[in-house]
Amino acid sequence: MITEKIDGVSVSTQANVYFDGKCVSHSITFPDGTRKSVGVVLPATLTFNTGAPEIMECVAGSCEYRLAGSDTWHTSKAGDRFNVPGQSSFDIRVTEAYHYICHFG
Amino acid sequence: MITEKIDGVSVSTQANVYFDGKCVSHSITFPDGTRKSVGVVLPATLTFNTGAPEIMECVAGSCEYRLAGSDTWHTSKAGDRFNVPGQSSFDIRVTEAYHYICHFG
Repeated sequence: MITEKIDGVSVSTQANVYFDGKCVSHSITFPDGTRKSVGVVLPATLTFNTGAPEIMECVAGSCEYRLAGSDTWHTSKAGDRFNVPGQSSFDIRVTEAYHYICHFG
Repeated sequence: MITEKIDGVSVSTQANVYFDGKCVSHSITFPDGTRKSVGVVLPATLTFNTGAPEIMECVAGSCEYRLAGSDTWHTSKAGDRFNVPGQSSFDIRVTEAYHYICHFG
């Protein structure tokens, strides 16, 4: 099931721009204080570092990802999720735009 | 006054990607059905066409813009707004990221 919208949230108006714009996200905050972000990775191969653990949920497009310490690339498509440990990193390869929700913690 | 966040809205999780990613926005919907978008224009010179009239509100960074039929470039900075007629266009020049809220209607 694909999460097309998220209701009842506060959205930060200033975008988060990473890697010269290859990744752009907006932060959202739920009434209970939970924070997530909605974003897009444009065609590129990038490495993201994590602070908190993250769950990456694909809502459109697709990517390939490889977790730190692994040699294996996996595909993630709309409706799929993958988990990234905290204080770690992952590589991501995108050939069509990868639209995501990032859940923290 | 700068609008740093917008509360109590529904956010569309899939981004709107224009001009190969030089402009990325997310659509938001208010409880009364009003739609706006929050987005960013990265360094570039672009021409945007309007359907409905738009009010562009800068929340961070800056741009220069020129409305259709005008020779004059104006600067818009954080806290500033400019109006664009419907069924028209405007040119925008960005040298640092221009973060905006687009109000329609």
